[in-house]
Amino acid sequence: MSVQMEIICVGNELLIGKTLNTNAQWLAKRSTSLGITVTRITVVGDDVDEIALATREALERKPRFIITTGGLGPTFDDKTLEGIAKAINRKLELNEKALKMVKEKYEEYAKAGKINAVEMTPHRVKMAKLPEGSEPLPNPVGTAPGVLVRIGGTDLVALPGVPSEMEAIFDNYVVCMLRKEAGDVTFFETSIYADNIMESALAPLIDIAMRNNPYVYIKSHPRGAEKKPHLEIHLSTTAKDSETAKDRIGKAIIQLSDLIREKGGKVKLRE
Amino acid sequence: MSVQMEIICVGNELLIGKTLNTNAQWLAKRSTSLGITVTRITVVGDDVDEIALATREALERKPRFIITTGGLGPTFDDKTLEGIAKAINRKLELNEKALKMVKEKYEEYAKAGKINAVEMTPHRVKMAKLPEGSEPLPNPVGTAPGVLVRIGGTDLVALPGVPSEMEAIFDNYVVCMLRKEAGDVTFFETSIYADNIMESALAPLIDIAMRNNPYVYIKSHPRGAEKKPHLEIHLSTTAKDSETAKDRIGKAIIQLSDLIREKGGKVKLRE
Repeated sequence: MSVQMEIICVGNELLIGKTLNTNAQWLAKRSTSLGITVTRITVVGDDVDEIALATREALERKPRFIITTGGLGPTFDDKTLEGIAKAINRKLELNEKALKMVKEKYEEYAKAGKINAVEMTPHRVKMAKLPEGSEPLPNPVGTAPGVLVRIGGTDLVALPGVPSEMEAIFDNYVVCMLRKEAGDVTFFETSIYADNIMESALAPLIDIAMRNNPYVYIKSHPRGAEKKPHLEIHLSTTAKDSETAKDRIGKAIIQLSDLIREKGGKVKLRE
Repeated sequence: MSVQMEIICVGNELLIGKTLNTNAQWLAKRSTSLGITVTRITVVGDDVDEIALATREALERKPRFIITTGGLGPTFDDKTLEGIAKAINRKLELNEKALKMVKEKYEEYAKAGKINAVEMTPHRVKMAKLPEGSEPLPNPVGTAPGVLVRIGGTDLVALPGVPSEMEAIFDNYVVCMLRKEAGDVTFFETSIYADNIMESALAPLIDIAMRNNPYVYIKSHPRGAEKKPHLEIHLSTTAKDSETAKDRIGKAIIQLSDLIREKGGKVKLRE
């Protein structure tokens, strides 16, 4: 059984198309490479009810992990923790460990002369108000800590939306959690390229290759219009070790390439 | 009342992080600029049940529009229409109008010498099998038609995943649909930049500016770490005409800039 994860990205900037969701891609790629199966990515706005709804829906699907991005900062529209708390019927409470983390950050900034005094304003304290029973995860790059909440069989990790902060907390704390669950599993992927064959003619050949190689997932991506067919064929598999994975992919490539050449297509191993 | 839209993107390549979801951003940006409110973006894999579930959930939230991307092509894993049909309890049926569109495309390709004969293989016919009661939307760039299905008060439009095809069908057919519903509404956005002030100090100032400018949405985006604060402040509004919109944004900028300067911050109109 694969270890499943859902990603929830919070931010109006994503829904108005101001920001390209590179966080979701980064998380999906890193998690997949660790052997995790990402089953869904959801983007909602800076709205407590929307965040709560998306969180509740995701929890109902019982993934092993939920990762959220965005909405942990000091401003009025940073509402992710409020939304999560609402989804799981817990209160937000001042977390002493988190408060210490936030305070130490501002002391650092004061020492560096960036601010005059370490005044713990309501907006700063806000970053330390976590759903009951949460654990703060230190943010090595910014101010707002990440947050880990365990809900039944699901570990929910809330990460900041600033990419460098999100990545740092993920690498420092989340990777070990995922690795522990996924075990020694490797995701391997590669692409080959086909010319002189249309996607609709390639389709039945992929069917054959996938039947013969049940652990390999093969998907064609048109690059260029159907009129001037240039196809990327992406092959991927998850296996116990990288040798098994590469073996499987290698066999599938050989079979599929033969089938494509029989139909007059040209196969290249590089773009 | 705003006209609401949800976007559903289908594709394993998005869930493994192979592909950056530029389609969602493009659709969100274009739709927002037409006065539509995008309330959610959902990404699911090439799986009939997952697509059906996401579609059913979106329909339950009763948006005026749902746009899907991906999964309309000739290969085994192009399952979007099957998923939509399942979600709304309709059968897939051969749509004669769609079949004619697909056939004409292959006749074109044959004439251009790209293929030998116009053989309507099962994989090609597949692209013309639509949920009962659907309307195909011509694809000026590729082969698979877009699909319009009306379900209660929701118009669902299925678009291909290849960006050029998705964009062409959107511009040719979807823009008029959206414009008709949204009416004469303009979305206007701009950013100013602040230095020498931390996000946590800016937060209460944004609160004040938003209270005084109820139609303007203001959101800060840290660019640089909190330690060396450089903030983008994004202001946006939706109004009946662009003059009203610009007036509102202008007033909010003046008020907020004054507040920031009072706290010793520097405001710039450009990055």
